[in-house]
Amino acid sequence: MRSLLLHGLRGVRSYSMSTVEQAKRAAAFMAVDQHVQNNTVVGVGSGSTVVYAVERLTERVKNENLQLKCVPTSFQARQLIISNNLVLADLETCPELDVAIDGADEVDAHLSCIKGGGGCQTQEKVVAAAAKKFVVVADYRKDSERLGQQWEKGLPVEVVPFAYKPVAIKMERMGFEPVLRMAKNKAGPVITDNGNVILDVKFDATQERDWKQVESDINNVAGVVEVGLFVGMANVAYFGMEDGTVKTRTP
Amino acid sequence: MRSLLLHGLRGVRSYSMSTVEQAKRAAAFMAVDQHVQNNTVVGVGSGSTVVYAVERLTERVKNENLQLKCVPTSFQARQLIISNNLVLADLETCPELDVAIDGADEVDAHLSCIKGGGGCQTQEKVVAAAAKKFVVVADYRKDSERLGQQWEKGLPVEVVPFAYKPVAIKMERMGFEPVLRMAKNKAGPVITDNGNVILDVKFDATQERDWKQVESDINNVAGVVEVGLFVGMANVAYFGMEDGTVKTRTP
Amino acid sequence: MRSLLLHGLRGVRSYSMSTVEQAKRAAAFMAVDQHVQNNTVVGVGSGSTVVYAVERLTERVKNENLQLKCVPTSFQARQLIISNNLVLADLETCPELDVAIDGADEVDAHLSCIKGGGGCQTQEKVVAAAAKKFVVVADYRKDSERLGQQWEKGLPVEVVPFAYKPVAIKMERMGFEPVLRMAKNKAGPVITDNGNVILDVKFDATQERDWKQVESDINNVAGVVEVGLFVGMANVAYFGMEDGTVKTRTP
Amino acid sequence: MRSLLLHGLRGVRSYSMSTVEQAKRAAAFMAVDQHVQNNTVVGVGSGSTVVYAVERLTERVKNENLQLKCVPTSFQARQLIISNNLVLADLETCPELDVAIDGADEVDAHLSCIKGGGGCQTQEKVVAAAAKKFVVVADYRKDSERLGQQWEKGLPVEVVPFAYKPVAIKMERMGFEPVLRMAKNKAGPVITDNGNVILDVKFDATQERDWKQVESDINNVAGVVEVGLFVGMANVAYFGMEDGTVKTRTP
Repeated sequence: MRSLLLHGLRGVRSYSMSTVEQAKRAAAFMAVDQHVQNNTVVGVGSGSTVVYAVERLTERVKNENLQLKCVPTSFQARQLIISNNLVLADLETCPELDVAIDGADEVDAHLSCIKGGGGCQTQEKVVAAAAKKFVVVADYRKDSERLGQQWEKGLPVEVVPFAYKPVAIKMERMGFEPVLRMAKNKAGPVITDNGNVILDVKFDATQERDWKQVESDINNVAGVVEVGLFVGMANVAYFGMEDGTVKTRTP
Repeated sequence: MRSLLLHGLRGVRSYSMSTVEQAKRAAAFMAVDQHVQNNTVVGVGSGSTVVYAVERLTERVKNENLQLKCVPTSFQARQLIISNNLVLADLETCPELDVAIDGADEVDAHLSCIKGGGGCQTQEKVVAAAAKKFVVVADYRKDSERLGQQWEKGLPVEVVPFAYKPVAIKMERMGFEPVLRMAKNKAGPVITDNGNVILDVKFDATQERDWKQVESDINNVAGVVEVGLFVGMANVAYFGMEDGTVKTRTP
Repeated sequence: MRSLLLHGLRGVRSYSMSTVEQAKRAAAFMAVDQHVQNNTVVGVGSGSTVVYAVERLTERVKNENLQLKCVPTSFQARQLIISNNLVLADLETCPELDVAIDGADEVDAHLSCIKGGGGCQTQEKVVAAAAKKFVVVADYRKDSERLGQQWEKGLPVEVVPFAYKPVAIKMERMGFEPVLRMAKNKAGPVITDNGNVILDVKFDATQERDWKQVESDINNVAGVVEVGLFVGMANVAYFGMEDGTVKTRTP
Repeated sequence: MRSLLLHGLRGVRSYSMSTVEQAKRAAAFMAVDQHVQNNTVVGVGSGSTVVYAVERLTERVKNENLQLKCVPTSFQARQLIISNNLVLADLETCPELDVAIDGADEVDAHLSCIKGGGGCQTQEKVVAAAAKKFVVVADYRKDSERLGQQWEKGLPVEVVPFAYKPVAIKMERMGFEPVLRMAKNKAGPVITDNGNVILDVKFDATQERDWKQVESDINNVAGVVEVGLFVGMANVAYFGMEDGTVKTRTP
């Protein structure tokens, strides 16, 4: 079973670490250093950048003997927490967190984020919303002036399975182009950890939008569980840059 | 297995039918007569009043040889459709319906409804939203000037299980009193047909509210699947009255 | 939210404690005293008798400063562990337990048990099977010569929802009488915490059976997740008796 | 939405059809021709070979005006049935089928099958078990003397999520090598349409085994929903061969 725990979860620290990986790591380290201290309850997000955040949390727990509690947003986050011997907590025992540190698929100039490429946006949003601060960590490729410049797969929308067709029709009427996300290692659609399906809802990136309104409009469509749009939630984003520096953005 | 299919699903037509049952039946019959014709795709709701709607659909299919398709909103509705030999359809083959006929736990003067006493509000809302017309059938006890006058259990809010505690905290901050609905025939909380839990969110009925805003605010809480508030959806309500008449209300 | 945590979870210790409650408490206390020591990983079962086991675990943690880890088998067990400040663990971090202490709906002369009145038999069986010892605690009313003498609701069988009808037909062909368990606080069937339904499979209690074979036969029916028959699993049962003593039974 | 329905579901009928595709088609056509007639209730399996079975069902419905009912085993099968305008049925209205026609990942000399590469083995087994006849269609690459000769990914075992670790340990103790199947289009493990996870349980193919016993042993592990081993179920297999002929095998 050891292979299960380590599958894709280890940071790469060799000299040949790519520029992108170095950028992720620098952003994640700075976020952890600036927002975590003794007794912090930390939401641990998902994705490749968060691996470095956990690496840094682990270092600091060892070096500074920090008492932390870590609430995961996904199976991956949970595995990372367990395999690094951090203290695993959950939203039942820790329904209020000090900070949630998570990646994003894209972040715009106003800190609006698209999340859900990994299909965990509902867990991620619940954890972010339960935290006093929501901190985004990403590399320079996720940094956009406006949403849709880099991320072309659309807004990930989690939907109760029986409703995917009527929800898709509503999305079309709102001017979007929904595509049911299909699985690769099983037949049929991707099923989320909550037992739902995902519509990737493509939008015209050239059009100006009130993303707060879009988020609300989509959440109000019957059958939608959660859209992977996080508007007005992030307190700060750390972008690891190509030159090794970290750029921060606040609202 | 026959007993499964008939469990609680047959209309009572004896002379001793109670005033309330007669009221339900009169409302349901009028709704079916006014909104169903040949080739109608009908959403079939849940609850004791809908039993009479299905009785009338069945009569009319036999007498008038109507071709109908029936999309259920619940296990009960599905059983009713099957056991009466009506044509069963679903939201994948019929994502757009002509009319949805459903009950309600309470209806106010503006046709805002509370639904979800049976825990099926997500399916019911998806079906209602997919229909050109949403028709409510109820007896006089569900007819209120304002929500909360008769129905004291609060707004049924379906929530992904891991999020019930943070969602409950948000509800309290919005001035509500959430209670996790516990099951009777199993240990622990009621689990919905979608695998989620229900918070019954009590509110102060004496306070004036913008229910459309409340519906949107609750749907925008991360972790909420659907709130059993149906505002601006009903095209007409039929209330069976104590005197045997049917009162209709339009927006 | 405090009310959620305490709902029905506190042991009753007043002088008016009924004979049955005293019996449950005596059995639970003895089981904990004989099978738990420092560093034990304990599976905490479900039901009213287990409340007393947790009471005793909590006392002993306080008095003897025991380091325990507690793996719950249900929402109720989880709440009990949390509200008593015991250390909550799970099957991912503790996939092997020292002992599982759980109740039963009925226990026969050979320590075969029926479980699942609360619908948690799958979780309970996984935890019991993962433990080095499985210890049953119950009051004298659950003590039978043969299964079905006291417990008349049949074998609780968890079934994937789409398969309930073919599975029911197979059960009938095996000579049983299956009934789909209906919910009280929601419309339609009881849904388990795993998102499945339950068939309560009645059997003729006067007939001699090889329960190990029955357990295997039912588990091999396609669509069955787990049957609430625990044969050859219990290492010991503690029955609290009407006279205040505790009777033990080993295989 | 049209693209959803047609995604990968159309048979290829050009002259350039590959040898493998021609083999699948020939096997599927023969199976349909020999086992389907007017009023047959057909279980429609999953996978690339079944696409041709549906093609043939559709042709025959048109040409011979057959009245069929089709019960799908997966999302894909359901889409195929709908997009070809066949009559969609389910296990609630048709709990007993005349024949189930399905593919397999591997078939041995005794008609034991491995299924579940697509993660639908539970639905497939329920449908196969509910049918009077279970007919396997495959191309020559799936035809093995013994299981494991061609299919190297192991036995797909559907497991309730919380139990994956204890189940994996049991599989190891039984001499197998379990691997949690990870997803590609979402983070974390593949989730089945039933909300569960899959362990791909590798076995030593050189060892002689009693597969009926293995099937039963695995189904009896607590937490296992269904193993993708179908032993003693198939009435006949049709293998499309490289030379364009169809080889049949009966038990």
